[in-house]
Amino acid sequence: MLQRIGFDIHLAVSSPTMLVANLLVRPEFQRDLRALEHLSISPELVSEAYSDPFGNRAVRVAIPEGVDLVELSLDTVAYYSGEPDPVVPDAEQHPLHELPVEVLQFLLPSRYCEVDSELMDYAWQTFGSVPPGWARVQAVVDAVHERIRFDYANARPTRTALEAFREGTGVCRDFAHLAVTLCRCLNIPARYVNGYLGDIGIEPLPDPMDFSAWFHVYLGGRWYAFDARHNEPRIGRIEIAYGRDAADVAMTTVFGSHELRRFEVTTYELPDA
Amino acid sequence: MLQRIGFDIHLAVSSPTMLVANLLVRPEFQRDLRALEHLSISPELVSEAYSDPFGNRAVRVAIPEGVDLVELSLDTVAYYSGEPDPVVPDAEQHPLHELPVEVLQFLLPSRYCEVDSELMDYAWQTFGSVPPGWARVQAVVDAVHERIRFDYANARPTRTALEAFREGTGVCRDFAHLAVTLCRCLNIPARYVNGYLGDIGIEPLPDPMDFSAWFHVYLGGRWYAFDARHNEPRIGRIEIAYGRDAADVAMTTVFGSHELRRFEVTTYELPDA
Amino acid sequence: MLQRIGFDIHLAVSSPTMLVANLLVRPEFQRDLRALEHLSISPELVSEAYSDPFGNRAVRVAIPEGVDLVELSLDTVAYYSGEPDPVVPDAEQHPLHELPVEVLQFLLPSRYCEVDSELMDYAWQTFGSVPPGWARVQAVVDAVHERIRFDYANARPTRTALEAFREGTGVCRDFAHLAVTLCRCLNIPARYVNGYLGDIGIEPLPDPMDFSAWFHVYLGGRWYAFDARHNEPRIGRIEIAYGRDAADVAMTTVFGSHELRRFEVTTYELPDA
Amino acid sequence: MLQRIGFDIHLAVSSPTMLVANLLVRPEFQRDLRALEHLSISPELVSEAYSDPFGNRAVRVAIPEGVDLVELSLDTVAYYSGEPDPVVPDAEQHPLHELPVEVLQFLLPSRYCEVDSELMDYAWQTFGSVPPGWARVQAVVDAVHERIRFDYANARPTRTALEAFREGTGVCRDFAHLAVTLCRCLNIPARYVNGYLGDIGIEPLPDPMDFSAWFHVYLGGRWYAFDARHNEPRIGRIEIAYGRDAADVAMTTVFGSHELRRFEVTTYELPDA
Repeated sequence: MLQRIGFDIHLAVSSPTMLVANLLVRPEFQRDLRALEHLSISPELVSEAYSDPFGNRAVRVAIPEGVDLVELSLDTVAYYSGEPDPVVPDAEQHPLHELPVEVLQFLLPSRYCEVDSELMDYAWQTFGSVPPGWARVQAVVDAVHERIRFDYANARPTRTALEAFREGTGVCRDFAHLAVTLCRCLNIPARYVNGYLGDIGIEPLPDPMDFSAWFHVYLGGRWYAFDARHNEPRIGRIEIAYGRDAADVAMTTVFGSHELRRFEVTTYELPDA
Repeated sequence: MLQRIGFDIHLAVSSPTMLVANLLVRPEFQRDLRALEHLSISPELVSEAYSDPFGNRAVRVAIPEGVDLVELSLDTVAYYSGEPDPVVPDAEQHPLHELPVEVLQFLLPSRYCEVDSELMDYAWQTFGSVPPGWARVQAVVDAVHERIRFDYANARPTRTALEAFREGTGVCRDFAHLAVTLCRCLNIPARYVNGYLGDIGIEPLPDPMDFSAWFHVYLGGRWYAFDARHNEPRIGRIEIAYGRDAADVAMTTVFGSHELRRFEVTTYELPDA
Repeated sequence: MLQRIGFDIHLAVSSPTMLVANLLVRPEFQRDLRALEHLSISPELVSEAYSDPFGNRAVRVAIPEGVDLVELSLDTVAYYSGEPDPVVPDAEQHPLHELPVEVLQFLLPSRYCEVDSELMDYAWQTFGSVPPGWARVQAVVDAVHERIRFDYANARPTRTALEAFREGTGVCRDFAHLAVTLCRCLNIPARYVNGYLGDIGIEPLPDPMDFSAWFHVYLGGRWYAFDARHNEPRIGRIEIAYGRDAADVAMTTVFGSHELRRFEVTTYELPDA
Repeated sequence: MLQRIGFDIHLAVSSPTMLVANLLVRPEFQRDLRALEHLSISPELVSEAYSDPFGNRAVRVAIPEGVDLVELSLDTVAYYSGEPDPVVPDAEQHPLHELPVEVLQFLLPSRYCEVDSELMDYAWQTFGSVPPGWARVQAVVDAVHERIRFDYANARPTRTALEAFREGTGVCRDFAHLAVTLCRCLNIPARYVNGYLGDIGIEPLPDPMDFSAWFHVYLGGRWYAFDARHNEPRIGRIEIAYGRDAADVAMTTVFGSHELRRFEVTTYELPDA
C-alpha cells in the first residue's frame, strides 16, 4: 500500500545564514520509498547531508548574501504495511539497571520536557498504582489525551511539557512532550518523533495536512510508537526524525531572523495500482 | 605540579533504584592522573562503567532493595601544567556552514539554555556590534559576570539561563548556563563543563570546596574554556564531563526519591615533592 | 550532467543463509541521485538496512529455507559535476602525530594489504626519495600502473597486494590494493573505494561495464581519490562504499555456498535533457 | 583477589616517528584496578590518549628527531574475582540474520584470519556435524589446540591463521588467529583479544611472563572468552584490547624502523592482604 508524502516550505530569510533541515525520512524508512526522495532547494544552494547524533538524516544549507527566500520541497511515495500500530500489553518495563546504556539519555530532562519539575510528583501520584510497562504508558497517554485540548490557533513553538500541562491546550508536539516527560518521570525511556501521518483508515481529518509528532517508549527490549494526541492505533506512520524532544528535530532551523511564508505538507493514501 | 582531587558524597535513597554517577575525569585528563582514580562505592554494589553520548565516563550503580544509604568517594592526584587558561584574541568565529557537523548540536536549545527565548534579542542587541570571535565571547562573559551575583544560599537545581538572567543571582552553573545560551544565540557553539577548579594562584576562596562549572566555546577549530563566574584565566582545571547543559552531566542522578546527606569536594594544590 | 547507474545480480544460494549487500551509494552521494535508489530483491525477503563501521549503507537479507536464487537489482540516475578528479600537487602529507586519530586505522595492515611485508622495504627504496605528499602518492600510482597488467581473465577474489605485486597481473581491485598498501607503508593513510565509474570523457571502454575500485589518500586535511588502474583524472565517480580493503566492502557477501549466475552493471552518461 | 600487572618495554627507534601503544586495560576493566594505571614514557614525550574504533584505549606518542630509545612501563594492581572462565554449554548460536549488526564485522576476513581460504572447507568438513553453539566452538578449540604445537622459538609476527594451520606451530596469537578464523567460517562472530593472563590456579608456567592472546565468540547474546592455546578455563584474565585480529591491537606500533631492546611483562598473583 502506498502513500504520497512531501512538502513545500518557503522561508524568508536575512542572509547570510545557514539552514538545517530535518526533512528526510529516517534511515529505517528509506527502504520503503517507492520514488526518489529529493530535497529540492530553490535557489540552488550549496548543501551538505549528514547524520545527526540520533542518526537522523539532516541537511544543512549555506544561504549566501543576497538570498532572501528559500524554497524547500519534496514529493515522493512510500510503502506502508497497512497494519495499525502494534499493541503489546505484555511488553515489560525494564528495571533501570537492565536498560541498555544507550537509552539512558532518554530518561533525562530536555528543553521541552521538564522531568525535574512538579510533573515528577504528579506522575507518581497519578500513575504509581498502575502496573508498570505497557499499561502504565497507556495510562499516561489516556491522561494526556484527556488533559490537553487540541487547538491549532493556540500553538506556541516554545511551549514546554509543564506549560502544556498547566495551560491544557496544545498541538500534537505538546501532547508528545507531556507524555514523554511523564514516561521519563516514571523511569520509562521515551523519545520524541516527527513524521508523516495521514488519515488512513479513519475519518478524514478536517485540519490542513501537516507533519505529526508522536513518541516512542522503550519496553521489552524495543521501541514502540504511542500517540497521545490521537490515542488510537493508526496506520502508515513514516518517521522523519527522533530525538530528546522537538528541539533536536526541528523540521527547519534557520540561524537568524526568518519568517515562514508557506508551509504545505502532503500525506495521503494512493489508490491501489 | 600536582593537586589532590576527590569527593565524599552520601546519598540517602529509597531502594530499589539506580544511580548514575558522572564523577570520573574526562578521558582527555586520565593521562594526567598520578594516583589511582577509584570510585569507591559503599556498600559494595554492582556497577557498570560506560561512555555516555558525549564520551564522558559514566558509572551506573544498581541499588537493590534494602539499601538506604550510598556513599561514593574518590581521592586521587592530578598533574596540571601550571599555565593559566589560554587567551587567544585572534581565535576566529567560524561561518555557520563551515562548522564541523559534530558541533551543531551545541547551537541548539537545551533544558537549561533557552536559546529560543527573549535571550536571542538581548544577545544580538547587546553583542551584535562587538567583533565576532573571541572578543564577542569575552563580551558575553563580562556581561554575565556583571549581571549575576554569586549566592550559594540561593541555588536552585532547576534554574534555567533565562531565570538566572531575570533573577540576577546564581551559582557557577547559572553563570555557565547563561553564557552558553548567549553564545549559542550568537551562533557560537558552546557546551557546559563540570570539573575541579581549586584556588591555585589566587586568593584562597572563602567558600567550601566544590565542583565547579564553566563552559567551552568553539572558535578557530577548537574548544576553549571560558568561565563567566570568575572571569579571569585560572590554573589547573580538571574536566569531569561536558554536555549540552547541566542536565547531561549531573554529578549524580538517582532515579527516585533521595536526599543528599554529605557532599564534600577536595581540590587543592600539593606542595612540590 | 546525469548518468544512469545500477546493476542486476543473480546469486544461486544454499539456503537458509544471509546475504549482506554493499550496493547503495555512500551517504555523501545520496543528494546527487535523481531517481529512486531502490534495491529490488526477488523473491521478496525480509531485509534490514544499517550503517556499517565505515558509514557505508549496508543491507542484510535473511534467505529462508527453500530459496535457491536471489536477484538483486537497482536502476537509478545520478548527477555528476562533469569536473575531473581534482589534482592538488601542493596537498601536504601530515606528520604522523598530527593526523586525526580517526584516520590511523587506515595505516594498518588489512586482509589484502600486507603493510607488514617486503612491500615496506620496496616502498621506501622506491619512493623514499620522492618528495612526500601528492608527488609521492602519484609516484606510487605510476609504479603500480606500470607494474600490473590488467587482465580480467586472471582475476582472483583472494589475491592480496603482495601477490599482485609478485604476479604483475590483476584487475582494478588489485591495482587499488597494491597502491593502498604502498601508501600505508609510506605513512600515508589510504582506504579502498568501490563505486561506479563510466567511460565519460574518454575512449569507450571495451570491457563489459562493471563496478570499479579506486582508493582515497589523506593529504592536507582531506581525502583525495586516486586510481592506479587508469592513472588519469576521470569524470563522474559515484562512491558506493569504502573500507580498509575489499574485505570490508564486498558488493555481496553470502554466508554459505553460492554461485554468481548473473552480474551486469550499468553505468553510462545520459544525453542532456 | 589481586594480581600485579605491568610491563617494561624498550624500543630503539629511528626518529622522528610516531608510536601507538595499546597497553592500557579495556574500559570494562578499569573499575578493577587497585593502583594507578600510569603509562610511563621515557624520555618524556608529547602523547595523546584516544579511543580506537573498537573502544580500546590507545596512546600515541610523537617521537621527535634525536630520540633513539623509548621506554614504556607500567606497574599496577588489578582485582579479579577468582572465578574461572564461564562454561555455558547451552549458549546458543544466533541465526545469522538475528545477529546484532554491530557484530557482523567479526565474521569477515581480516589480515591474519583468511576466512576466504581453504579453511572454509576444512571448517565445515570437520565441524559441520558438531551441534552449533558452544559445542561447536569447543570442538574448534580442541582441534586448534591439538594441531598447533606451542613454540616460542618459532614465532613470526606476520604468520596468518592459514600459515599456522599448515605449519602446525605457533604461539598464543597463532592459536587465537586460527580459532577465530574457523569460528568465522562457521558463521560465529569471533574477535581477537590481548591481555594479561597469569598462571593463577595452575602449574607455574616455565615460560617468561608475557602478554597473552585469546579470543571472544558471540553466543547467546554476549561475548565469551575461549583460549585455544590453553584449552581450559583459566582465572584472572585482564583484557587490554580486542579487534579483528592482531593487526588491530598490536601492543606497540612504531611507524618506521625500530628494534625491541627489552620486553618484560609482569603478571602474578598477590598474596592476600
